[in-house]
Amino acid sequence: MGEGIMRLGFVSVNVTDLEAARKHYVEVMGMQMTDRTENEIYLKGWDEYDHHSIVLRQSNRAGLDKMAFKVHTYEDMEQLEKQLQQYGASVQRVSKGENHKVGEGLRFRLPSGHTMELFVEMEYKGKALPQVNPAPWPEGLIGVGAPRIDHLLITAERPHETVDFLMKALNFYMSEKVVENERSETPIAAWLFRSYTPHDIAIIPGKDEKLHHFAFWLDEFNELRKAGDVFSKHDVPIDVGIERHGITRGQTIYYFDPSGNRNEVFTGGYIAYPDMPVVKWTVDQLARGIFYFNHRQEWIEGFTGVTT
Amino acid sequence: MGEGIMRLGFVSVNVTDLEAARKHYVEVMGMQMTDRTENEIYLKGWDEYDHHSIVLRQSNRAGLDKMAFKVHTYEDMEQLEKQLQQYGASVQRVSKGENHKVGEGLRFRLPSGHTMELFVEMEYKGKALPQVNPAPWPEGLIGVGAPRIDHLLITAERPHETVDFLMKALNFYMSEKVVENERSETPIAAWLFRSYTPHDIAIIPGKDEKLHHFAFWLDEFNELRKAGDVFSKHDVPIDVGIERHGITRGQTIYYFDPSGNRNEVFTGGYIAYPDMPVVKWTVDQLARGIFYFNHRQEWIEGFTGVTT
Amino acid sequence: MGEGIMRLGFVSVNVTDLEAARKHYVEVMGMQMTDRTENEIYLKGWDEYDHHSIVLRQSNRAGLDKMAFKVHTYEDMEQLEKQLQQYGASVQRVSKGENHKVGEGLRFRLPSGHTMELFVEMEYKGKALPQVNPAPWPEGLIGVGAPRIDHLLITAERPHETVDFLMKALNFYMSEKVVENERSETPIAAWLFRSYTPHDIAIIPGKDEKLHHFAFWLDEFNELRKAGDVFSKHDVPIDVGIERHGITRGQTIYYFDPSGNRNEVFTGGYIAYPDMPVVKWTVDQLARGIFYFNHRQEWIEGFTGVTT
Amino acid sequence: MGEGIMRLGFVSVNVTDLEAARKHYVEVMGMQMTDRTENEIYLKGWDEYDHHSIVLRQSNRAGLDKMAFKVHTYEDMEQLEKQLQQYGASVQRVSKGENHKVGEGLRFRLPSGHTMELFVEMEYKGKALPQVNPAPWPEGLIGVGAPRIDHLLITAERPHETVDFLMKALNFYMSEKVVENERSETPIAAWLFRSYTPHDIAIIPGKDEKLHHFAFWLDEFNELRKAGDVFSKHDVPIDVGIERHGITRGQTIYYFDPSGNRNEVFTGGYIAYPDMPVVKWTVDQLARGIFYFNHRQEWIEGFTGVTT
Repeated sequence: MGEGIMRLGFVSVNVTDLEAARKHYVEVMGMQMTDRTENEIYLKGWDEYDHHSIVLRQSNRAGLDKMAFKVHTYEDMEQLEKQLQQYGASVQRVSKGENHKVGEGLRFRLPSGHTMELFVEMEYKGKALPQVNPAPWPEGLIGVGAPRIDHLLITAERPHETVDFLMKALNFYMSEKVVENERSETPIAAWLFRSYTPHDIAIIPGKDEKLHHFAFWLDEFNELRKAGDVFSKHDVPIDVGIERHGITRGQTIYYFDPSGNRNEVFTGGYIAYPDMPVVKWTVDQLARGIFYFNHRQEWIEGFTGVTT
Repeated sequence: MGEGIMRLGFVSVNVTDLEAARKHYVEVMGMQMTDRTENEIYLKGWDEYDHHSIVLRQSNRAGLDKMAFKVHTYEDMEQLEKQLQQYGASVQRVSKGENHKVGEGLRFRLPSGHTMELFVEMEYKGKALPQVNPAPWPEGLIGVGAPRIDHLLITAERPHETVDFLMKALNFYMSEKVVENERSETPIAAWLFRSYTPHDIAIIPGKDEKLHHFAFWLDEFNELRKAGDVFSKHDVPIDVGIERHGITRGQTIYYFDPSGNRNEVFTGGYIAYPDMPVVKWTVDQLARGIFYFNHRQEWIEGFTGVTT
Repeated sequence: MGEGIMRLGFVSVNVTDLEAARKHYVEVMGMQMTDRTENEIYLKGWDEYDHHSIVLRQSNRAGLDKMAFKVHTYEDMEQLEKQLQQYGASVQRVSKGENHKVGEGLRFRLPSGHTMELFVEMEYKGKALPQVNPAPWPEGLIGVGAPRIDHLLITAERPHETVDFLMKALNFYMSEKVVENERSETPIAAWLFRSYTPHDIAIIPGKDEKLHHFAFWLDEFNELRKAGDVFSKHDVPIDVGIERHGITRGQTIYYFDPSGNRNEVFTGGYIAYPDMPVVKWTVDQLARGIFYFNHRQEWIEGFTGVTT
Repeated sequence: MGEGIMRLGFVSVNVTDLEAARKHYVEVMGMQMTDRTENEIYLKGWDEYDHHSIVLRQSNRAGLDKMAFKVHTYEDMEQLEKQLQQYGASVQRVSKGENHKVGEGLRFRLPSGHTMELFVEMEYKGKALPQVNPAPWPEGLIGVGAPRIDHLLITAERPHETVDFLMKALNFYMSEKVVENERSETPIAAWLFRSYTPHDIAIIPGKDEKLHHFAFWLDEFNELRKAGDVFSKHDVPIDVGIERHGITRGQTIYYFDPSGNRNEVFTGGYIAYPDMPVVKWTVDQLARGIFYFNHRQEWIEGFTGVTT
């Protein structure tokens, strides 16, 4: 019995200054650097056990290199390959080791042009806590101390095509969507999940191939205040926050990494089951869906306009 | 592509005074009563959309009548039926309507003697929030205002047999287990999941067919304090809490309903993925696994000894 | 042994639409209306026992009518009268009942032109909780459910003169001040207290006689999120927040009442003792002192520029 | 204009193993050791600026050596000396330096036999934060990271005598008291304050000269959970908690230092003004006043019976 995609495995992000990025992700966000090559840095959060969940790649421009989702079994991956081909996607096999510490996988492009990969195995590294009689949290966390990555949000010129692809070829479920009005069904934007959270990936209107943000999970609302304090101490530019999302009910701070990639610290939200009826947000109430407290026009424009 | 069991669908609980139970679950816990027959009351939390997640049944003794898990599709249920039969379980078909507002299903007994059912469909009722442009929480919540049920914990004379059954015949994953020592593998107790939370069901040593507790989810730690205040105002007997669990990292209050069934309000814990290495608790550190703050012997004995 | 001023007793606020103001302060903020005349509404929070802490006055423009501080004893008030006269202030006696439900008092103007009063007695109304065996919070709170008012912030063309007046004639203590640079002493702005909180009143540069905001206390950080949700549901315009203050360490949302008076919900901060060395904020770090997370210029300008 | 006693200045506590005590107060509680002699250790919290708030004294038995309250001015202290003498107390002058780093003071005994001192000046040490442009919290806090001490609770054979002494000779205010029934006035136990918190000192029935506990302030409820986790990691024996107090509305964990002195981490509670009507707890509801969640007899007995 196959269960398909399990979670967002890793994001590979382009940064324009690898050392500044390392400093930010390690000293401010509190990620553990698990490996480093000349042009790449591998990072994991304290509550993650795979070798990495973020790859930072030296580049001359910021933005998303690619995203990779972890699949339960090789049988599941084969099944997904068939579904992808049936959908009309051009799927490439990725050999073991082509991604550092990652096993065989698949590579393809979303209708929006973003590169996505699937994989089943990554070298095991272990959480920052022991596997026997662990304390509830590890000593010596640095800065924000984010336990794990949570989701990413990309932009697309025709969001509904990418949404359709993710749902039909990859079995993503939809938790919420933006529509023209109450009676509309076509998603102007959509929040999709595999891991019973409100979103593992979301698609909003914008340029193809662009990253809006990727997000770190924090365990509770008070951790957002701590994150905000840490960002201020380290002069991390905050985009918006502390805010409540109407969509997902989550709470958030958006901010930028040193290369200008938008990041989020996110907490809250509900448990999302596949049989949950999709929540709709109509365009006229969208501002409240994005920022429930402050739904002023200029905020929303700045927030939705900037991508990398 | 089948995904099997999705979540704990409902618990059917025996109560010795139906009206006292109604008062407790509605006026203290804040559940919505969605239906009532002469001998049964149907309840759901404000963030649940199925017709009910708890059935209260008038009986001459407290305890668990049965538990039912919701399955993704009928194909999945057929597949699980085969696995159950292959495992040697005696499986009964349940016809539509045999359970009020519930579709066709399967019934069988765990090695521990508990009755478990599977189903795919239940009448849709809807959350307390609208499906279009919902606020993050509904107005007018009563008492504790629990959004949903979370898990249940049962006792078994030979826990490892029931654990084996749940994992092999029903594809449950294990998040944590109690073992004799670091090198032991046989579970003395185990926490199992399907819904990416640390547990949908747990099995600890004790008498067969007994309920240790079933739990309500609360959205954050401060809600436990509110729950404790509400319990005190309504003279609900608290068993233990506010406490931290070492196992699951959750936070908790245990208390009793008017019939003496133990309930829990639970929050926190991590996201549990199927590929997460199982966390082990050795018997010598078990007290800390159960109650991380207070691991005094008398507490642990009272807590593990009383069941319904 | 005299102890002088005890706390901010009440603020009398001009509103342009009394009914809209009532709706806001009662249905959104959760204040109890304790009295009403044709042109005035009297309000108290659930944790306040005096007859009122806010007076809303129908007027053709928003802004502060006056503020009144409660003094321990009549001996203390006499002593303060002498100090005021010695300082050169013109002090008027206020007779009992001139302020509805308030005893004899004193009236004078601050150097900034604001009207301030002192009083010793106000009719006792009682908290929303019983005085014998009270629960920790009352049932049935509405909206934000603010327990009490906390402080107010006024603007002055020459803040140091008003600061000097408040400290010398009225024995206010200073917790924090803004100065030109580390070696400067003259306050460009100052936070003053009598009640062992970081501020009962603060003075920042701006037009004379103007109100920047008055604030409600909330018991913890999570209550700010609830307040933000309630504001959004009621379309209350949020000015800034959720934010952290560098000055006072408090956490905040600023918003406007229907007449455009800025209000704040405030929590956190330290216990301020009279012997605590004054904390200094230099002008170059002031933005961080005001909003610790977001210290962008446009925010600070909007925030400091608008008064009523 | 004199304001008398400002706050609990320091507690001097007998410990049976000075090194074990140092380890506990520094490595678990996160206090800063500001001085050490052969038989004494001086400690302060990160948010305290005086040289010390706790003195640990090597002794052959645990318990309270003495408590000292800080007074605003020498004029205030003279005034209090007169009041003490008028009350019939035998007051001793303490010379500067008799208490390490502390100025001239007064020493006397409460009717309960406890030694109390007053002082006006202690060597200034400074908070762990800079006085110019401070961040809201310091980096590198250890363990619980308690910012300051809060109050102490002592036992007396005739509590009302000590309460009378503290109120009449030292101008303490009463926030709450335990009485026989609604109509009774004589305090069986009482919570007294000078610093606008619900208590700086409390007196409950028990043996004379005994310490029930002294308490550390924590900034919010979530900090209690962190404290509980830290206590468990360091095998600090927890007495009771996490609990809510009915009296003061505070939230708490009680625990023991290595010598068996009971300590508390405390947060919450209201702002206590001198004109607030005294809250009464009747003996039949006292258990709920002490522990609002768990008001079982055996808890209350264990809690009230053990002192040092």
